[in-house]
Amino acid sequence: MIEYKIYACGKFLETDKKLTVYNPFDGTPAGITFLASVNDLEDAINCGLAAEKEMAELPSWKKYRALMFIAGEIREKRQDIARLLALESAKPLRYALGEVDRAIQTCVVAAEESKRLPREYIDLEWTPSGEKREGLVKHFPVGLVAGISPFNFPLNLAMHKIAPAIAAGCPIILKPSSSTPLSLLSLADTFHRSGLPEGAVSLMPMDRKTGNLLVTDPRFSLLSFTGSPAVGWKMKQEAGRKKVTLELGGNAGVIITPSADIDRAVPRCVTGGFSYSGQVCIHAQRFYIENSVFKKFTEKFITQIRMLKTGNPLDPETDISSMIDVENARRVEEWVDEAIHNGARMLLGGRRNGAFLEPTVLTQTREEMKVCSREIFGPVVTIEPYFDFDEALNRVNGGNYGLQAAVFTNDMRETDKAFHRLRVGGVIINDVPTFRMDHMPYGGIKESGFGREGIKYSILDMTEPRILVKNF
Amino acid sequence: MIEYKIYACGKFLETDKKLTVYNPFDGTPAGITFLASVNDLEDAINCGLAAEKEMAELPSWKKYRALMFIAGEIREKRQDIARLLALESAKPLRYALGEVDRAIQTCVVAAEESKRLPREYIDLEWTPSGEKREGLVKHFPVGLVAGISPFNFPLNLAMHKIAPAIAAGCPIILKPSSSTPLSLLSLADTFHRSGLPEGAVSLMPMDRKTGNLLVTDPRFSLLSFTGSPAVGWKMKQEAGRKKVTLELGGNAGVIITPSADIDRAVPRCVTGGFSYSGQVCIHAQRFYIENSVFKKFTEKFITQIRMLKTGNPLDPETDISSMIDVENARRVEEWVDEAIHNGARMLLGGRRNGAFLEPTVLTQTREEMKVCSREIFGPVVTIEPYFDFDEALNRVNGGNYGLQAAVFTNDMRETDKAFHRLRVGGVIINDVPTFRMDHMPYGGIKESGFGREGIKYSILDMTEPRILVKNF
Amino acid sequence: MIEYKIYACGKFLETDKKLTVYNPFDGTPAGITFLASVNDLEDAINCGLAAEKEMAELPSWKKYRALMFIAGEIREKRQDIARLLALESAKPLRYALGEVDRAIQTCVVAAEESKRLPREYIDLEWTPSGEKREGLVKHFPVGLVAGISPFNFPLNLAMHKIAPAIAAGCPIILKPSSSTPLSLLSLADTFHRSGLPEGAVSLMPMDRKTGNLLVTDPRFSLLSFTGSPAVGWKMKQEAGRKKVTLELGGNAGVIITPSADIDRAVPRCVTGGFSYSGQVCIHAQRFYIENSVFKKFTEKFITQIRMLKTGNPLDPETDISSMIDVENARRVEEWVDEAIHNGARMLLGGRRNGAFLEPTVLTQTREEMKVCSREIFGPVVTIEPYFDFDEALNRVNGGNYGLQAAVFTNDMRETDKAFHRLRVGGVIINDVPTFRMDHMPYGGIKESGFGREGIKYSILDMTEPRILVKNF
Amino acid sequence: MIEYKIYACGKFLETDKKLTVYNPFDGTPAGITFLASVNDLEDAINCGLAAEKEMAELPSWKKYRALMFIAGEIREKRQDIARLLALESAKPLRYALGEVDRAIQTCVVAAEESKRLPREYIDLEWTPSGEKREGLVKHFPVGLVAGISPFNFPLNLAMHKIAPAIAAGCPIILKPSSSTPLSLLSLADTFHRSGLPEGAVSLMPMDRKTGNLLVTDPRFSLLSFTGSPAVGWKMKQEAGRKKVTLELGGNAGVIITPSADIDRAVPRCVTGGFSYSGQVCIHAQRFYIENSVFKKFTEKFITQIRMLKTGNPLDPETDISSMIDVENARRVEEWVDEAIHNGARMLLGGRRNGAFLEPTVLTQTREEMKVCSREIFGPVVTIEPYFDFDEALNRVNGGNYGLQAAVFTNDMRETDKAFHRLRVGGVIINDVPTFRMDHMPYGGIKESGFGREGIKYSILDMTEPRILVKNF
Repeated sequence: MIEYKIYACGKFLETDKKLTVYNPFDGTPAGITFLASVNDLEDAINCGLAAEKEMAELPSWKKYRALMFIAGEIREKRQDIARLLALESAKPLRYALGEVDRAIQTCVVAAEESKRLPREYIDLEWTPSGEKREGLVKHFPVGLVAGISPFNFPLNLAMHKIAPAIAAGCPIILKPSSSTPLSLLSLADTFHRSGLPEGAVSLMPMDRKTGNLLVTDPRFSLLSFTGSPAVGWKMKQEAGRKKVTLELGGNAGVIITPSADIDRAVPRCVTGGFSYSGQVCIHAQRFYIENSVFKKFTEKFITQIRMLKTGNPLDPETDISSMIDVENARRVEEWVDEAIHNGARMLLGGRRNGAFLEPTVLTQTREEMKVCSREIFGPVVTIEPYFDFDEALNRVNGGNYGLQAAVFTNDMRETDKAFHRLRVGGVIINDVPTFRMDHMPYGGIKESGFGREGIKYSILDMTEPRILVKNF
Repeated sequence: MIEYKIYACGKFLETDKKLTVYNPFDGTPAGITFLASVNDLEDAINCGLAAEKEMAELPSWKKYRALMFIAGEIREKRQDIARLLALESAKPLRYALGEVDRAIQTCVVAAEESKRLPREYIDLEWTPSGEKREGLVKHFPVGLVAGISPFNFPLNLAMHKIAPAIAAGCPIILKPSSSTPLSLLSLADTFHRSGLPEGAVSLMPMDRKTGNLLVTDPRFSLLSFTGSPAVGWKMKQEAGRKKVTLELGGNAGVIITPSADIDRAVPRCVTGGFSYSGQVCIHAQRFYIENSVFKKFTEKFITQIRMLKTGNPLDPETDISSMIDVENARRVEEWVDEAIHNGARMLLGGRRNGAFLEPTVLTQTREEMKVCSREIFGPVVTIEPYFDFDEALNRVNGGNYGLQAAVFTNDMRETDKAFHRLRVGGVIINDVPTFRMDHMPYGGIKESGFGREGIKYSILDMTEPRILVKNF
Repeated sequence: MIEYKIYACGKFLETDKKLTVYNPFDGTPAGITFLASVNDLEDAINCGLAAEKEMAELPSWKKYRALMFIAGEIREKRQDIARLLALESAKPLRYALGEVDRAIQTCVVAAEESKRLPREYIDLEWTPSGEKREGLVKHFPVGLVAGISPFNFPLNLAMHKIAPAIAAGCPIILKPSSSTPLSLLSLADTFHRSGLPEGAVSLMPMDRKTGNLLVTDPRFSLLSFTGSPAVGWKMKQEAGRKKVTLELGGNAGVIITPSADIDRAVPRCVTGGFSYSGQVCIHAQRFYIENSVFKKFTEKFITQIRMLKTGNPLDPETDISSMIDVENARRVEEWVDEAIHNGARMLLGGRRNGAFLEPTVLTQTREEMKVCSREIFGPVVTIEPYFDFDEALNRVNGGNYGLQAAVFTNDMRETDKAFHRLRVGGVIINDVPTFRMDHMPYGGIKESGFGREGIKYSILDMTEPRILVKNF
Repeated sequence: MIEYKIYACGKFLETDKKLTVYNPFDGTPAGITFLASVNDLEDAINCGLAAEKEMAELPSWKKYRALMFIAGEIREKRQDIARLLALESAKPLRYALGEVDRAIQTCVVAAEESKRLPREYIDLEWTPSGEKREGLVKHFPVGLVAGISPFNFPLNLAMHKIAPAIAAGCPIILKPSSSTPLSLLSLADTFHRSGLPEGAVSLMPMDRKTGNLLVTDPRFSLLSFTGSPAVGWKMKQEAGRKKVTLELGGNAGVIITPSADIDRAVPRCVTGGFSYSGQVCIHAQRFYIENSVFKKFTEKFITQIRMLKTGNPLDPETDISSMIDVENARRVEEWVDEAIHNGARMLLGGRRNGAFLEPTVLTQTREEMKVCSREIFGPVVTIEPYFDFDEALNRVNGGNYGLQAAVFTNDMRETDKAFHRLRVGGVIINDVPTFRMDHMPYGGIKESGFGREGIKYSILDMTEPRILVKNF
């Protein structure tokens, strides 16, 4: 079985603590890697700090070249990486390929943005006291970045921290999820040959306790975390003076209005509700369908969900495979059972087999049920009729989350109202909330997050503005 | 004596706790106001929350009109406000007038920026999966803002929180310094007649314990604090999920190079070192003079400091008056004594009389002395020769602060080097670090702060971006 | 009767050629002014050239102050100016007041934009050959500007050339229409006391031959013309090396779709079709109504047009008064007659009395009739049913003009299609093409114009970018 | 010998009029191509017009992909293209390689900018009349573009028209110089396989008379011309209603101040003065050296010029080869002779051998000599002492041109003064005026040009803004 070494400070390391990564679908080992010790991390931090100056002074063409080199290598190894990613995560191959393509795009966008860091040249002559003065604002890298990425997009969500860090001129130490570290680590050699200084990028799986040093150590200038709300908000409190970006979860709502094109909406809703078994931060969880089209929508929706092909993630035809582990599948099953017990009706699915859970559709739910109020992170959706558009907006706004939401409509008054009223980071019209382009601003409000990602926005976060005031 | 009522939720309040404000120069009462109770604050919070929706929906012309109205009223009452400000703070009248003028400008700039909130319209067709989609990003107000402003610029630093909040569409509860709340409160009626909704702006002096609720109460969406580092950083930890902006202090350095125009530099250095007795966040505290011009600079510098006129703040001729209180004057005196005791040499000043401390110049100091390493916030400067420009930059960079710094030079290589090497929020060329225009980005790094103010930047901070993704 | 002197080179001039301006409504004299001679113009040009340097070096606060001063004076004299404007142009008083308000706004916006001239600070390190280089782009004033403004908005369209010129730092010589020069000239003293250098603004009525020197004289750096297409395009050919901006006319189309709110649309259509007797560049001339709502729309439209009050422009109740002169009224009458003769049907109006022409509605017209294909610039509209939205777009696009167009709809697919397909400078949704805000980009394509106005856009036009490339 | 076919409307054409292209260095044929007839052009125009719609609707990822494909192919054929370019133009191989690299960069930048066309989303609520309205401004392609490129950068200056046209969504017909059409035509197949619609790009050598139709035909929406002033300004007059961009020539000045680093300046000045025998629009023609460093600079300058290696352009060591033809070499020789005859002194060079002219340095020239006042476009520079910086600026500003200028200095006061006073499109500090990055704004004022190139700026020129005003 292949061993994937840790990559830190320009070196490939093995440690005492081997970590075997298993394929969630069949429990076979997918590969082996290592957990970094506190000492390994200490070395990486010192190396990262030592690289701050060189990283900060890199001309943009070198950052561009490095990022385009990385993009190019991923493109060349596309099939292999996607296979490994499918293996470690049970993500169906065609979604794994899609993720690899997005990781390429993430690097390309970061390459381009590295040449376009924000600068301002400001007229200071707005009052007599500023006469003969002008101000130049440039953005300087904050310094060493700590990144923590989740299991569900093991490659692209890691790249969403690494690529902007390179573009901003910050060294980064990235801790991938211990469940799915392999696809990223398989690129260590690519980073190594990218022409960046030693210590620019370190990729280090570690246990949670060691990982907590990424949060508390004051030598990091910024922590970028993607994961669960409970963990994230605690980090913010423990982070000391460093900047913190949190990309957490949600329980995204979808509204289907009477003016929507139902035939166009249904397949998108199936994808939004069940791709990667709903283990997606912007999984379409709660559907609100205007009453007059509820029946029509529901029938088509159920019909198309039934057509989803379940199976081995490596099979190119597979739409749905296992969840990441049995614990999570059990948790989701329990939430569903609780809902049924409290009066919800199951329209489809509900059965579990190990880590595999059937695509499940519930109706007659209530907002306080866990399947509504919490982030389900599983292949379960709720579907309810509504009678009034304002009511539907209020229901989507209910609860603690605010990541993305969606409305299918052709009426511009509804579009505008949804945009102004929905308390989320993104409102998607005529597609599911699961829609994301890698260069768009992305992130949540309320309990769903703090700050925005999306290359340009991450880069901005990883810099500090400094003004030069010149007198003539 | 005039009583200035608290202004909260569109009402003028008296409370049980009277607060008499004294003129630091002669100890006579300057006016009377009140401290808000926890209940008063609770009412104001509820009122502010109730105003969130109306504030968020204000069209820009109404925000513009309100802010221009406020600017206009301040302009009309300029002399009265400046007098009151001088009285409560012992700030010499001509500096008080300058502050009032800046407060006007702060409102004017906020009025203009309220019409120019950032918006982006993004091409999403960068990959095939984004085809026929476009993204609109608008910035929505975060909600209720808590502002805490300091004693040293009682009007303008309060306006730097209030005016952007109005422009952003956020209600704000502002706690002025208990030492100098009157000049701001004298404008309560102006805010009242500005056409803004009830609860848009509340001005509430309160004791520190009540004030701490501004930090901890989760109903505030953002805390904007200007004050001391010790207090500020603790707030960041206690702030929970809200956003935090900290404008703290520094020990700003100034470099005089051989190519500098000494005759132009000296009067600016006198102002930067001693205006308002150095009680300024960007007070010019540490001077580094290239050795070959050290003697020349020092002689002219001392000569001009001697010419500063001390006295009653209400006297239009006064350059320097009392510090804010005896405690602070004593603290500064002690730091000076400690420096002298450890080998520093006094070139000028050093004597204290109650809250008044002479303009003081020290040399032969060492970086670890409090007069160097800490924010002195008093009329004391250190002045040392240097031999090498890089060394001078390193000395300015020494220590924990990073707000602003200054270099007097005509050599563009030095300008560029200073800009890229000085780890501060602002580098001022051919003027003192004390230079600030109200529309420029302003704020510190390291222990000097978190985030940026400067109207446009404050407004940005007081909003959250939201993207609308449309499919055609 | 009041004499309004020419204002040139900081002097108030009388010349040999008196020009009496008449009220088109009753033929009484409205006031007297003078035509500049070639020599007067020569003096003004030399004076303007001499002012170029000082204007270019004005700090933004002086330009802001001057423009806000002008705005303030217009605000104070609002009623008087509007009355004079109504008198010289027969524009009904309430529209005249609206124009004066817009002229104020034009100045305010220019004041604000004078502080925000575009600047870029460019990373040049995109390739190794650019390493250690950065580029600063500032916009410098082009130099002396020639402005020619039309009769129909005698104040605001003149201000749309003068205010941006001030903001850009360009001296300007403006030739108002000989029919309506008085309202502008009544502000000469305001310009005189605005603090701008002598020669910054000259206001000079002149005959067409003298005026042609504004086009051909190479000492002008830019010609900004608003008027008729025939005159404008010829100017472009004769302008030599100078820049040229042309704001010409159109025959704007309006589409009413079935999803439109008819009750909201009708009053706007009445205004768009008949305000100032249609003597507006973006007059709503051609209406295309979806067949199923044609009858309903037409009835309400006719009913409301009938309610328009005709009469003396000075009467605050008057909606419609005379056209600018008998010649034009006759021309429009002839075009209507020609249409009727060729098969069009008159639904309303058509009678002429001197310079007054009734609000006229035609149907069953054909595209080649002058009332359709040419700019009618009179109180005449055509109204036709359509069956297919694409067809309606094509009909709006037919012909040689492309200024603005409008669609009343609530369907976002139609909105998007209209925006992408209509070949015009502006597409207005749910209002008439006659809608214009003074800070929005405004101008036509095809034969309707060349370049854009709208303060910021005019300012940009009146500058040249210059890059400074610095090496470190 | 290789035949390079014309490429028009997606087809490779031969015509009756063969054009043999000769190597200027030794007169041997470099290759054969064809001149397009009026009929060929007519076909290409119709084909280009037919492609307008499809080009306008291309999503950005397709434009990006096409441009990156073209960049990639040029990179692969780099050596072959450079060789051909050297052959047809007598440009020394290492400069030819540099030009090919720049052409690649031109495509890459255009690819990136195609995803970043300017868009504005405007708040229209600045006055009550705009309430509930917002404006979206997008830039739409103007339509068919005519491009005319010169002999001296046969590849990159053609790409500076083609690449932005693709990025903007405009079809383009490009006429290369008849002296050097081959390197561009060798890429026809690359354009053909780039995935763009038929008629997107046509490459057509033609005689001057046929070429004039590019100027006069009203079906072209924009003419982009790079060439000589005499030809260019005439085109502007004949262009009718289309937009015109002119990139013409200059007689760029260079100032060497006492604070300059002479050792760093000299090799750059040698390059700026003599690369490609001065046949460069931004050739460094006139040198003004502060008197105290005149002797030192001149000696080093002459010494290093003497070290330039002359010879066969295909030799990788060659610095200087033949001029483009004997006529031009003769013309330059005559101008030099005229200068000598009128009192100038020759410090170096002056001898001609066929199309080859020695690197020539003149001093004691006067401004009215052709070698000063006109664009020499040959390997000749003038070098004069100056005594006062303002005087030097005035001398650089003398004459009719204003493309770029350069100052070697380390004094920021001189930098700022030069930037504000020099009437040119670009001021280069510490490098020669010959410096250009392909993404910087580039173009002249006065007689040197009209409009700006530089990808982003060209793209902007090739579009028209259109505003969508929405009411809520």
